[in-house]
This record gives sequence, structure tokens and C-alpha cells, in this order.
Amino acid sequence: MTTLFDRHRELLTSALEAVHSRRFWSPYPEVPSGRFYGETARADGEAGFAALRDSSFDLPGHPESKRLGGEMSPFDFALGISYPAADTAAVVEAAQSAAPILAAASPELRVGVALEALSRLNQLSFTMAHAVSHTTGQAFPMAFQAGGPHAQDRGLEAVALTWAELTRFAPSARWEKPQGKAEPISLEKHWSTVPAGIALVIGCNTFPTWNSYSGLFASLVSGNPVIVKPHPAAILPLALTVRVLREVLVEAGLLANAVLLAVDEAGAEITKDLAAHPAVRLIDYTGSADFGAWLRANALQARVFTEETGVNTVVVAGTDNFAGLCANLAFSLSLYSGQMCTAPQNIYIPVAGIPTDQGHKSFDEVTLGIAGAIDDLLADPARAGGILGAIANPATLSRVKEARALGRVVRDSSPLGDGRTATPLLIVVDPQSPAAQGEYFGPIALLVPVDDADRGIALASGVAARAGAITAAVYDIDEARIGRAITAFAGAGTNLSVNLTGNIFVNQSAAFSDFHVTGANPAGNASLTDPAFVAGRFHRVMWRRPVAA
Amino acid sequence: MTTLFDRHRELLTSALEAVHSRRFWSPYPEVPSGRFYGETARADGEAGFAALRDSSFDLPGHPESKRLGGEMSPFDFALGISYPAADTAAVVEAAQSAAPILAAASPELRVGVALEALSRLNQLSFTMAHAVSHTTGQAFPMAFQAGGPHAQDRGLEAVALTWAELTRFAPSARWEKPQGKAEPISLEKHWSTVPAGIALVIGCNTFPTWNSYSGLFASLVSGNPVIVKPHPAAILPLALTVRVLREVLVEAGLLANAVLLAVDEAGAEITKDLAAHPAVRLIDYTGSADFGAWLRANALQARVFTEETGVNTVVVAGTDNFAGLCANLAFSLSLYSGQMCTAPQNIYIPVAGIPTDQGHKSFDEVTLGIAGAIDDLLADPARAGGILGAIANPATLSRVKEARALGRVVRDSSPLGDGRTATPLLIVVDPQSPAAQGEYFGPIALLVPVDDADRGIALASGVAARAGAITAAVYDIDEARIGRAITAFAGAGTNLSVNLTGNIFVNQSAAFSDFHVTGANPAGNASLTDPAFVAGRFHRVMWRRPVAA
Repeated sequence: MTTLFDRHRELLTSALEAVHSRRFWSPYPEVPSGRFYGETARADGEAGFAALRDSSFDLPGHPESKRLGGEMSPFDFALGISYPAADTAAVVEAAQSAAPILAAASPELRVGVALEALSRLNQLSFTMAHAVSHTTGQAFPMAFQAGGPHAQDRGLEAVALTWAELTRFAPSARWEKPQGKAEPISLEKHWSTVPAGIALVIGCNTFPTWNSYSGLFASLVSGNPVIVKPHPAAILPLALTVRVLREVLVEAGLLANAVLLAVDEAGAEITKDLAAHPAVRLIDYTGSADFGAWLRANALQARVFTEETGVNTVVVAGTDNFAGLCANLAFSLSLYSGQMCTAPQNIYIPVAGIPTDQGHKSFDEVTLGIAGAIDDLLADPARAGGILGAIANPATLSRVKEARALGRVVRDSSPLGDGRTATPLLIVVDPQSPAAQGEYFGPIALLVPVDDADRGIALASGVAARAGAITAAVYDIDEARIGRAITAFAGAGTNLSVNLTGNIFVNQSAAFSDFHVTGANPAGNASLTDPAFVAGRFHRVMWRRPVAA
Repeated sequence: MTTLFDRHRELLTSALEAVHSRRFWSPYPEVPSGRFYGETARADGEAGFAALRDSSFDLPGHPESKRLGGEMSPFDFALGISYPAADTAAVVEAAQSAAPILAAASPELRVGVALEALSRLNQLSFTMAHAVSHTTGQAFPMAFQAGGPHAQDRGLEAVALTWAELTRFAPSARWEKPQGKAEPISLEKHWSTVPAGIALVIGCNTFPTWNSYSGLFASLVSGNPVIVKPHPAAILPLALTVRVLREVLVEAGLLANAVLLAVDEAGAEITKDLAAHPAVRLIDYTGSADFGAWLRANALQARVFTEETGVNTVVVAGTDNFAGLCANLAFSLSLYSGQMCTAPQNIYIPVAGIPTDQGHKSFDEVTLGIAGAIDDLLADPARAGGILGAIANPATLSRVKEARALGRVVRDSSPLGDGRTATPLLIVVDPQSPAAQGEYFGPIALLVPVDDADRGIALASGVAARAGAITAAVYDIDEARIGRAITAFAGAGTNLSVNLTGNIFVNQSAAFSDFHVTGANPAGNASLTDPAFVAGRFHRVMWRRPVAA
């Protein structure tokens, strides 16, 4: 019989080659097409999502003392799905019951389970796209990519690197210590890996799968039962994920409760209870810096991995493709209405303007160029809806409204298309203003006039270092200054994109190549996926004895 | 010109091979002999130490606002050495000033500096042995090994693994994403490593070098300036280490202040000030669980690696070499008067006795066998002194005195030899008594009668899991039960030695092979040296741009 591990061995090998070379690679097609997913995939996905709506989501064998779930699509309808729910003690107890068998399973078996689950999740990508779209507000094309194959890529990347760590050193050794002319001392030594404990994955509203899969799969493959705590507004994508994992676990002879769903309700969250539970030893969290700080101060028993708030910055110093610059930034600001952790916010532009292929452009011309490119991009409502999607959280709309008062409005935000929507707001703010120092999550971009480009680099990298940042971009034609920007943003611990004018955007972070979040500024410590992200999820224990004479 | 890196490249390669194979390897001879260190090494070491006594220890260019130092040898004399000292702000500022040049140095240069420093520290091993002996109380042979070559081994191991992490992934890549029939998107990507911040190494009284070198060298090679905060009673070994490192740094064109000494005085420790400083992002600590908990709760800005309190356990269930068992345990209990973090404390013995090659031995016969072996081992005072050494901390003597009241004394402790000394105390205590649940640091062993051997395994692994443990040992002739012990201690996250009766001891932890501390129980999270110990000491930052057409 072919084991799950054998079935997916080549995939694992290719993934490991990719993470080492950092070249482009993905086994999961990102195009939502029947060519890759089968001719009926699109229709099947629609039917699959329709069948989930207004129903009771089934997780056989899952702890359940009540049913919860009140998800509302940002496209204005109730999902009507109820999920099994239980109190923290019951969920943790279920995880603990599943722990010994999971821990005793070989790394090969756990990796096999993970890779098989990723394969099935890939086949489920169309259904998942609807689930992601109607919980996050992402337009369908993005929900498909980010919620499906790109999230699966991140999961696979984590599996591969965890596997590499689990098998990094010899599992046994004969240790022979010379004793001069006497016989050497000979010990046989044997190592096993032991998981850290119960893992908690705290999902976010905007990227429930993409931001959860790295920690989920790294913890599971390391042998830790995983409790998945979805955002109360984005349960379905993680419920689908948990169901697939539980099915594969059972088929592999493990216990379904090695992966659990901890559903709660807005206003009655159980996150703190779970995070502070003594048995929870690993926490993966995506969300606000405030709650990140709470976790660090209160979940002292756990290793905490976070992706938190940040201010992503752009410095516009010059370009040989002004139209491309404007179009590229317009797309980055519009995509999912600025609700990506990688979306730019503060755009620093010299007050005296910049050199371009269209001649000198004044500060106002640059800001109007970007605003105009947004207008062009969103001119066709159907196309606009496919880019903007909808606003996940009503609070974001309020933030847009308040942000208008921060400075001079260059481009106003307005509703556009179906559901709860808002196009990008562009405002000019003073570099010294408090507004320029913190995050405004959503479709809000601050245009910041600076004395010159080097001052822009200093301010942009400074706010990144202080407030955190996941991405930065610079546009320039002065190679020496580009070098200074590279140094400055490296010092701020921020990945930098230079002169993106084509069909690639600062928002994009590709698994196997881009480490997402550096860990070197306050935007978080979870670098997807570097060795520090996986290495502490398990431990090595040895036994040794003298070699029989 | 041969670089430092080139000079030591083979050493690095061999070290990496060793950590992967986990076989015996060491480049630093552990025998304090002129054959390895030169005919005059012993005399030079004595002269070197004599010259250090009653003098002002010089660290050119080090921050200095006062002089501190009141070390007393446990062999009853004052060292009379004063060290440069400064307040926390000045020390941190000096580290920050040295940081940019250290961060900008290539990993090769930093590794070269570390390996050259280790080589010079190796040549200094005889002087270091006196420094370690007269601050810790270790007898000279042990001070030489543990303070010199074995500590250097741990340093080298950390350098090698950090180097592996720093160079693990491609430093640059051409990322080409296919676009169907269109031209692929091509980006060039470049990664650099950026250090975490300032590193603090908090030394302990008993193993100032061995317990500090792993963190010190891992942090330095990762590009972090290191502040070494010695225990006020054991400054000299780390002062010598810091001096060597500063000399090599300067010779390599870096700044001496990349490694600093933060001396303080008992009762006026600056450890909390340093640990809570916002610039300090890495802390390596060896000491009490209480202070470990303080660090976790208060140094929230830092990644904290610890080795803390524990209760190491032994289960005596049976043996085919009773004399060897008793002699082996006697040595483990006597070596450095039980002041090793790896020394056994609780010895679980079936109340009905055990099968041996000398026939059945009752509980009392086993305890008297161990006690008698200790008496034999220590019968010759000169030999005894070379094993026991002296007691580092006067509080340990008080603990021995109080421990007599915990149960029935089988072997009493008494002074023996030069200085502040105490031979092992053996006491019988009830398995349920509070005494059997916590650590009694020093020459104190608890003999615990249990219903049967399996009960002993359960109790021994249970206390290890709850109170922490770095080592465990089992003596048995029942292979099935040995298997159960292996499973139980793995579950308790404790490395296990089985049937050690010869010239190898449960206390011994060899670099390149034994991971010291598993991280899987409360005895600490610093596993020397696994990837989790080094991976978070630096971060990866990228810049990317379109490939020019």
C-alpha cells in the first residue's frame, strides 16, 4: 500500500528545493479555471457553497455543547450557518485526548496527513473561494487565489520546512570517545521529537486561511494538536479546513480531535481563555498590536507568533515610467480596498516634485496622477468590483469617514458596487502630523510631502521601524539613492520593492520565495516561513546507553 | 592574506558534520597536558592567574565610571581583582555604538572572529581553569575541562549552527512567474540578515563559561553586540573571555564594544535594569526558576533563553553490575559536590529491593551500597578534593544543613579538604513528601522508596515533567520496562541515560552530540544547540526589483 507520505514525497522534495532556491514555484494553480480544476469545478464550487448556506455545519466527533455562528457576507446576506461549539475546557480536553496518538505518530505520517489535506483543500478551492469571499469581502478572483492556492502554498511551505527540521540531525548515533590506549567509551544514542503542547491558531477576518495555514500546518506536523479559533465573522473557511483535516486524520488512523474548531461570537470571544490556558504552548495570531501585546504579557506559558499592525510606506522619488508607477500604485491601493497587511499606506513625495519620463512632475501632479489612475482602474463598475471587493468590518467604513478630516482630500472615497464598499481615500498630510505615524487600516492612503527624496526615505523607514511595516516600495531613477533606500529599509526590518510598474505589486508575497513579515520590526515576529517560525514547535529528547560489549 | 574565516574553515566544516552526525568530536583537547597545550602551558597558566590576582583588570576602551569586583575563592582567599564598571545606560549606549559596524560585517567575518577567539581561549585554558576553579569551587581538573575545552566546544557548536542558519537559503534569486503565453514576470530578489538587537548573557556562579558561551557566540555571530553580565562571584572567567573577544574584534577591524562586560555587586545587581532595557532583544540566562519567571514577565521586548531549576531523577530497578552502579552514582553525586545542573537528586528504589548480579539487594542494601561507594571514592582526601571541589555559594552549605531534617540520613555530609566543602548527604524521604517534589541544589540526594520499579518510573518522570529536569537515569535488567522508562522520560522531556556503570556519567553532556536541556519541561527552553536556540537571533530582509529587460 502506498502511504500518504509516499504519495506526496515528490511534492515535498520540490517544495524543499523551492524554499532553498527561493525561485518561483507553486504546485497549486492560481487561475480559477476548469483547465486546472476540472470542467465542473466552478459549478461544483457554487453548488458546494449554496449547500453550506442556511445549514448546520457538521464536524463528526467534535465537542459540541451548543451551536454558534452568525456570519454576514459583506455582500449583504446572512450565511445562516451554525457550527458546533463548546467551552474552552471541553475543547482543550479534546485536544489533550488526541495528543498522545498524534505525538506517537511518525513525522512521515503527520507530513503525509498534512500533504493529503492540502491536496484535498486544493480540490475544494472553488467552494473555499466563495467561503472566503463571503466572510472577508474579497472579490471572487482574489478570494480564490489568496484563500485557496496561495494559502495552500503557505501551508505546504510550512510543512516542508518543519519536515526539514524534524529530520535535520541523525536520529541515532554511536558515540565513541577515545580513552588513550584504553578501549573507547561507546554509547548508543537515540533521539525522538516531542511536540510542544497544544497549539492555538487565532484567525483573522480578512485572510482566514492564508494567515492561518502556516502556523496550523507547522504545529500539526510537529505533533501538536491544533485548536483553530476563527474570527467570529470568518468561520466558514477555517471550518472547511478543519473538516478536511479531521477526515484525513481519521483515514490515517489518527484522531479527528487532533484538529479542533473553537467557534465564538463577537462580544463573547473565548480567545483570552484559550490563549491563557496552561496546556496551550503555541499561539499563532494575526491581528491588532494591542491584542498582540496582551498575548505577550498574559500567555507567558506559550510561544507566541504574531502578525500585527503596521504602516507600509512608499517613497516616490523619480521614475522612467510615470504612467506605470501611477497604475501600479493605483492597483495596490485598490486591491481588496486596502485591507491587505501588505497594502501601502503612507506615500512620501518630494514637495518640489520628481523627474519622470514625462518630464518634471510637481507634488500635485504626482498625487493627481495616482488619483487619476485609481479612477481609471475603477471606471468600469464590474471590473472595479472584481478588484475592490467589499469591506470586511463595518468599523473600517467609520475609519474612512473620520480619516477625511486628517488633511486635504485629493481623492475621496465612495461606495462602488455590491455590498459594503469604499474606494480608496487619498489625503495629503504633514510628515510631522500624528496622522502620519500610525495605521489606518482600510482604503486610506496618506500622501506626505517631504523636503527631498532622502528625507522621504528617512521618514518612511523611520515609521516602519517604529510602527512596524511588512512592505515598502520605492520609485527612483537614482541608483545611489536606491542603494541608500535598500540600506534604510533593511535597517527598519522591512522588505522593499523597487520600481514596480508592471503586473507585480508590492502587496504580493509569494510562498517559497518571499519571507512574509521579517520579525525585525513591530509588525510581528512570525516570518513565513523561516526556521525560527517552526523550530520551537517541537523538542528533541534522547536516550543513551552503553553499547553492549 | 588569509582571512580568519579561511584560517578556520575546516574547523567549521568538521563542526557542522559533527552536529549532524551527533558522533563524538572535539577539536579542543580535554586533557590538561603539555602534550596538547605545550610543555610550559601548566606553568604559564599558574603564572597567568597569579598575575591577575590583586590587580586591576584591563579592558581597553571599555566604558568605565568605577571599578567593582569582590570575588572570593571558595578555597578561602580573595581574588583582589577590580574590573571596569559603568551604569546600564552607558553599557547599552556603547553596545549600540558598536552595533552598525557589527551588523554590516559579513557573516564570514563574524564567524572568523568567533573561531579565532575560541582558538585563543583554548590556548588560555590553563589560566581559565584557575579562574574558573577559584570562582566556582570546581576542582582544577574539572575547571579545566568544563571551563575550558568543553565550554569552547559549546561555543563552537553554536557558531557552526548559527553559520548554517545564516547561509541556509539562497542569498539572491531570479524569480520568474509564468504568465501563460505572455512574457514571465521576472524579479531579482536579494536577502540580507539583520541582527535582532542587543544581546544580554547572564552568567551563573557555577559554570560561568560553559553556560554562557552558546548564547554569547550565537548572538555575536548573528551580528548582535553582546553584553556579558557575570555573576558577581564569578566574573574573572567571563572577563577573560570578553577581553579575548575584544582583542580579536579590533584586529578584525570591528569595534571592541561589540562585546561588553557588565560587572555588578551582590546586593546591587543591575541584571533587571539590563534585561528590561528596550534595546535588549535577546537574553540568555542560567539560574533560578524564580528569576527566569521574572524575565519572562518583565523582559517582554526580548527573546529569552533559559536554563533553570530542575529535579534530576534516577530509577534503580535492577542491574547486572551492582558495584558499577554504586560507583557510577557515587561519582555523579560527588562530582563538584552535586553543583551541576545535570547532577542526580532523587533516586527511586523499590521498597522490596532489586535483582542484581550479587543476588537480591534490599532497599537498605542499595542505599548503603551507594553510600559506601561514596565513602570509598572520597577515602583519599587528595583524590576527594579533586572530585568534590568546593561549594560555590555559602547558601548551599545552609541548605545541606537544613536538608538533614527532611528524612532519615543514610550518609551524612561533612567538610572534606580545602575551602568551603561538603560531601554528599543521602537521606531517605517519602515519595509523597513535599521534599521529593523540588530542587535542593548542592550535595543532597534523596533516596525514595517506591512500591515497584514502574511506580518509580512514573514518579521520577512525573517530577521531571512538573519541576523540570535536565537528566534522568535508569538502571534495569528488564528490557520491556526500560522501554517504558524511555517512553515516560521522553514524555517528561528529559534525556535519559540507561545502565551507566563505567567511566561515563549521567552528568556529562557532550557538545556536538548531546542537546543540553530539551526545552520540553520547566528546566528551561535553551536547548544547546538546536535550531530554535539560534534561529531567532537574526532576521531576513529582502529587496526586489524587476529584472531589466
